[in-house]
Amino acid sequence: MDPIEVHFFEEIEPQECILIEGLPGVGQVGKLVAEHLIHELGAEKIAEIHSIYFPPQVLLDGDGTTRLVCNEIFRYAGDRPILFLVGDYQSASGEGHYLLASAYLDIAEELGVRRIYTLGGYGVGHLIDEPRVLGAVNRPHLREEVEAAGAVFTRDEPGGGIVGASGLLLGLGGFRDIEGICLMGETSGYLVDPISAHSLMTVLCKLTGITVDTTTLQERAGEMEHLVEKLRQMEEAKNDEELNYIG
Amino acid sequence: MDPIEVHFFEEIEPQECILIEGLPGVGQVGKLVAEHLIHELGAEKIAEIHSIYFPPQVLLDGDGTTRLVCNEIFRYAGDRPILFLVGDYQSASGEGHYLLASAYLDIAEELGVRRIYTLGGYGVGHLIDEPRVLGAVNRPHLREEVEAAGAVFTRDEPGGGIVGASGLLLGLGGFRDIEGICLMGETSGYLVDPISAHSLMTVLCKLTGITVDTTTLQERAGEMEHLVEKLRQMEEAKNDEELNYIG
Amino acid sequence: MDPIEVHFFEEIEPQECILIEGLPGVGQVGKLVAEHLIHELGAEKIAEIHSIYFPPQVLLDGDGTTRLVCNEIFRYAGDRPILFLVGDYQSASGEGHYLLASAYLDIAEELGVRRIYTLGGYGVGHLIDEPRVLGAVNRPHLREEVEAAGAVFTRDEPGGGIVGASGLLLGLGGFRDIEGICLMGETSGYLVDPISAHSLMTVLCKLTGITVDTTTLQERAGEMEHLVEKLRQMEEAKNDEELNYIG
Amino acid sequence: MDPIEVHFFEEIEPQECILIEGLPGVGQVGKLVAEHLIHELGAEKIAEIHSIYFPPQVLLDGDGTTRLVCNEIFRYAGDRPILFLVGDYQSASGEGHYLLASAYLDIAEELGVRRIYTLGGYGVGHLIDEPRVLGAVNRPHLREEVEAAGAVFTRDEPGGGIVGASGLLLGLGGFRDIEGICLMGETSGYLVDPISAHSLMTVLCKLTGITVDTTTLQERAGEMEHLVEKLRQMEEAKNDEELNYIG
Repeated sequence: MDPIEVHFFEEIEPQECILIEGLPGVGQVGKLVAEHLIHELGAEKIAEIHSIYFPPQVLLDGDGTTRLVCNEIFRYAGDRPILFLVGDYQSASGEGHYLLASAYLDIAEELGVRRIYTLGGYGVGHLIDEPRVLGAVNRPHLREEVEAAGAVFTRDEPGGGIVGASGLLLGLGGFRDIEGICLMGETSGYLVDPISAHSLMTVLCKLTGITVDTTTLQERAGEMEHLVEKLRQMEEAKNDEELNYIG
Repeated sequence: MDPIEVHFFEEIEPQECILIEGLPGVGQVGKLVAEHLIHELGAEKIAEIHSIYFPPQVLLDGDGTTRLVCNEIFRYAGDRPILFLVGDYQSASGEGHYLLASAYLDIAEELGVRRIYTLGGYGVGHLIDEPRVLGAVNRPHLREEVEAAGAVFTRDEPGGGIVGASGLLLGLGGFRDIEGICLMGETSGYLVDPISAHSLMTVLCKLTGITVDTTTLQERAGEMEHLVEKLRQMEEAKNDEELNYIG
Repeated sequence: MDPIEVHFFEEIEPQECILIEGLPGVGQVGKLVAEHLIHELGAEKIAEIHSIYFPPQVLLDGDGTTRLVCNEIFRYAGDRPILFLVGDYQSASGEGHYLLASAYLDIAEELGVRRIYTLGGYGVGHLIDEPRVLGAVNRPHLREEVEAAGAVFTRDEPGGGIVGASGLLLGLGGFRDIEGICLMGETSGYLVDPISAHSLMTVLCKLTGITVDTTTLQERAGEMEHLVEKLRQMEEAKNDEELNYIG
Repeated sequence: MDPIEVHFFEEIEPQECILIEGLPGVGQVGKLVAEHLIHELGAEKIAEIHSIYFPPQVLLDGDGTTRLVCNEIFRYAGDRPILFLVGDYQSASGEGHYLLASAYLDIAEELGVRRIYTLGGYGVGHLIDEPRVLGAVNRPHLREEVEAAGAVFTRDEPGGGIVGASGLLLGLGGFRDIEGICLMGETSGYLVDPISAHSLMTVLCKLTGITVDTTTLQERAGEMEHLVEKLRQMEEAKNDEELNYIG
């Protein structure tokens, strides 16, 4: 087994296109958005990536069939094709992160990718009503259009930089003259967060011109808002009780 | 030293056969079953595998002789030969898990293996009277015969997928057109569990047509049942005592 | 991607010179000194090093532009040129430390480096008024000039040896006939420490004949002294309070 | 830098000989014995081994000169030459343990080694008056002479096998037809233990026919016995005090 193995299911002619990465991460924000787009656009899986850098594990489909942990490339074959990078896990080691990101960029170059959007969550440690979408770019001239689409750039956020595929695709992509934009939805970091995903989707659609039905994502966000509201009430009730007890 | 070294003790002609994997794992369930079968069938060791991915350690035989940590292939040379993969440890690193599983599949292909049974335990965190045997397969059509032999498939178990050799042999084996069936005996996860092993053995024998004397395994299961019963009584006695103390 | 990638921005003719290393470490002492010198001397960046052994991360410049984690070589092109090795992180793995140090020495040899100064902090676990500068050398004959410049050599410090790039550049550099001097500023280990950096700078400047304005570093050291003084007062106040409470 | 680098200081003609390994380990028992023998026999250093698998560190000699962490081969050139393997550290990773042990065996084969003695401590978790010396061998026929020299073989000790170089040199050495004997001095595991080292030395000298002055080791063992006695008295005094307090 090679350290990283890429299996294409069909031959794809290179064509100028964009790549949207939504691998697992904080609040699964990027994953929710990318998977929603794949589903709504009817994008097709064109490749699977297996690697010794992923956890040594198979997952089970609902019917008890095993599936080796992998990352996947989907392709939406519209006038302006869109590639998606999604998957079960990111690398289990720091070195693997670099080698996998390089492999993804090899694929991107082969297929004609000129710009990469990487999607993630930005964990702030508390519940948020109206999550902002933070932006980062690998070329200064990209900032303007990202702001115009509704993302914000602040001097100190995210303080620790961007870790994993979302960061490396921008950093390493820059050396290959691939433009890179990272969008990070603010999220508590405790829960899978469709509210943040919905905010992020809005910015991404403005930036890319993608138009999709967001009903299912909005529904999930609605359910989540109910849940968050309940969590808040429980917390307040608990605080009141404690006050009574003291008072 | 190569990262993985396979030493065959004799030349084996490839012949259509099955491989049963019972490496160490939760409750040592798979190991107990595979070692019992090796013993009862009188299977012979045909190969040893050493690897830098195993712990850097020798074990001691009863007479003070050292033995380098290894995995082993045994072979039962009946009409329909059976290979067994057993050993001291699984890989100490995630990357080693993948590379070792690939090496095992190289051996399997060379020797004519068409189907692999991987055996393991499924830890549930509490004592169990009548352990179920869970199944997983790497081809949907295999499910029916596994259920017919008494294993169950549930939508949510095991939730975390299957980690280590038992999972990877199915996942990576599928790419080589080797059928894979994983049987997991329910077990507490705290103790070596011959009761679970006996349940698993029953399913495995039905599936493979192997017939062996299970007396020694049943005896160990009987002893274990006594032990578990005592543990239960001690726990109840302790609970009663606490109640008395409070009351 | 190669495990270590060195990108030169221009071709540099080899010329007898020294290398000053100030990578991140205890109290950021070495980093403060090296970066101050780069700034004051107007040294220019001539190379960037990227590596899979660094954390898999991009950092953000103030304007939201990403920058892949890296180490950098700066060059001051005076009569007697000076190279500087600075950067975001040291290696994330022990093996990477060795391989990166070797790569740095390859660069040093190519560019004509005859002597390396490695700068670091020596953490003592408590606040210090007048931090000493400890010395270590990779050739016994170097000790005399280092002591003459104000560094001290004590039999038992630092007890654990010197870990990371500051140590390895001396250890591995010795095999390549490159002289190596390590200067370690005493520091608490809890805070970024410009006071210790200023002490270290004084010794380094005497040793190398470098003359720079140290105003900004002295200012930072002054601010730090205020801060340390406040921390001390707070601690004493707290101790007094506790005494009152007891007494 | 190669992962493992061996530097010979002179060319050595292969000659039938033995190798004694005393790398750092539990109670530094093996290290104390090997270093005592090197000193008393006046063995000379013939090789140094550096490796990326050692901690990334230099140590300091008393005069402030750095020395890269290494393992070393010493040679006593008597009628029957003796090689010694000693050093600062063992491997920092499991994989490195295997690769270093293989490198040591390459050296052993080149120099004519027919038998390896590996020395270590066996930690039992409490202070011991008369430490036993446990034995292990990589060929059953070796046991008899090891027992005759005073080492004991017990069915259950050491239960966990032998980890690191002391184990691997026997395990991997067996594949190269090099006889291997491991001697383990019983020790608390908390302290550097010259008492255990002295016991081990007695057995080793009987086995190998080496005769050396053990005065310095006995003196250190004597000092240690005083220290242990004091520790015991302090513990008893403390226990008495607690009894008084309760009573």
